[in-house]
Amino acid sequence: MADTLENFTIGIVGGCGKMGKLFEKFFKNLGYEVLISDLSCGIPLEELISKAKVIIISVPMDCFEAVIKEISPLVNESHWVMDICSLKKEPIEIMKSHLKCTEILGTHPLFGPYEKDLKGKIMALCPVKGKNLLNWAKKTFSEEGLKVVEVSPEKHDEIMGVVQTLNHFWLVLLANLIKELDLNIEDLVNLSTPSFLKQLLILKRLARQDENLYARIQFDNPAGNKIREKLCNLCEKLVSEFQGTEKEEAFKKYFLQAKEIAKELEKLLKI
Amino acid sequence: MADTLENFTIGIVGGCGKMGKLFEKFFKNLGYEVLISDLSCGIPLEELISKAKVIIISVPMDCFEAVIKEISPLVNESHWVMDICSLKKEPIEIMKSHLKCTEILGTHPLFGPYEKDLKGKIMALCPVKGKNLLNWAKKTFSEEGLKVVEVSPEKHDEIMGVVQTLNHFWLVLLANLIKELDLNIEDLVNLSTPSFLKQLLILKRLARQDENLYARIQFDNPAGNKIREKLCNLCEKLVSEFQGTEKEEAFKKYFLQAKEIAKELEKLLKI
Repeated sequence: MADTLENFTIGIVGGCGKMGKLFEKFFKNLGYEVLISDLSCGIPLEELISKAKVIIISVPMDCFEAVIKEISPLVNESHWVMDICSLKKEPIEIMKSHLKCTEILGTHPLFGPYEKDLKGKIMALCPVKGKNLLNWAKKTFSEEGLKVVEVSPEKHDEIMGVVQTLNHFWLVLLANLIKELDLNIEDLVNLSTPSFLKQLLILKRLARQDENLYARIQFDNPAGNKIREKLCNLCEKLVSEFQGTEKEEAFKKYFLQAKEIAKELEKLLKI
Repeated sequence: MADTLENFTIGIVGGCGKMGKLFEKFFKNLGYEVLISDLSCGIPLEELISKAKVIIISVPMDCFEAVIKEISPLVNESHWVMDICSLKKEPIEIMKSHLKCTEILGTHPLFGPYEKDLKGKIMALCPVKGKNLLNWAKKTFSEEGLKVVEVSPEKHDEIMGVVQTLNHFWLVLLANLIKELDLNIEDLVNLSTPSFLKQLLILKRLARQDENLYARIQFDNPAGNKIREKLCNLCEKLVSEFQGTEKEEAFKKYFLQAKEIAKELEKLLKI
């Protein structure tokens, strides 16, 4: 262990999942002792909690509350507990209401387990209780080149309604429309513009993704249904306006509004 | 001029537009003499056609037929004529019916005037009449690192219905939905996943695009309206199924179909 690190042990509950393994490797590389407990591997949960200072909850969202309830009698005031759920409001409420420790942090790593390099990747942090775990997490992730963004659970979940729920919904829609139109994928690749090629490269990433996680992201965000409906309504509105006698003007109006956002993005994204 | 080049002059009709200038630079770099004729710059059309062997028509689609009719009395059998319209079926029919030359080629450069590097960019070629212009174009573009793809006008326009019309429609939809949801663009950037960041980078490209060209791409593709309607119908279908009691199964069905296409893309796109 490096001299500058506090000599504490990290326990990952659900450590045999893909994200659990990613964080096991991440913290081991930094010199920490990392313990794992999972349904069919690792050490017993009791042992993990008695030995670890930092407890990372890395379990599917649909069993999150059950896991928190299970560990709550074992967790004491000196533990530092953080989760990595894709939503933040509900998991944080669950942790707050069941855990008696004084350091709790909600996190959402905005990347999947297949990223080759975490440098520049975003780690959303929602402070809940205490400053020690928060400061340690900020320092640790920043020093490894991640971009740490502090955000409230409400704002986080609102933004994820677009960044994850809407984005995934569109990709599923696009792929199923290509299938319905009975188009050959190779023709689409061979005749891509740079813009559409990038779209296909985003779609390609779904090959590695898990349908259960993606179902949770689609359905657990409280704004998900509203956003899907708004997309659908706007789609109908544009389709209808693009059929009318004023279609040229309508298109230009919507296009120029899109161009305004594109210009804002030009300032923000110098990539 | 390099020794291997035939000693002919290239004339670009509409040469002062952005794509015209791109091709002027491209062919001048290769050592060709390039002449330009445009509404408010360059030489008179008559002079260009009397001096040039290869005539490249680089004008907006809404005045394409008028320009072809204007040049048709001046074009003789020895001219080589090619266009660069975003659609191919109708422009090719117009060229075929009005021009008496024996070498005609339809092309669609699948990139805009702002690309920094044309290497790897796609040039769609639709052979119309004669082999000399076709072979010269294939050789010239390939040698400069472009990917030349031969395709029928019908297939080209069908594929562009997705690659351009649908893709642009989605970007306009996404931007206007972000606006409607009143979300802060900086929050979206700061809390992006790698997937959504790529989506924003595609959207950013609209900042440099022209609303008139994009209106033509949206409205001139004969399949455009059908594709927009199909997107809308599928969107409604998914929104509705994602509200029902079988929503988990429905999501997984559509997600796994998308994953199949993603896996095909993994094989085709080794980027």
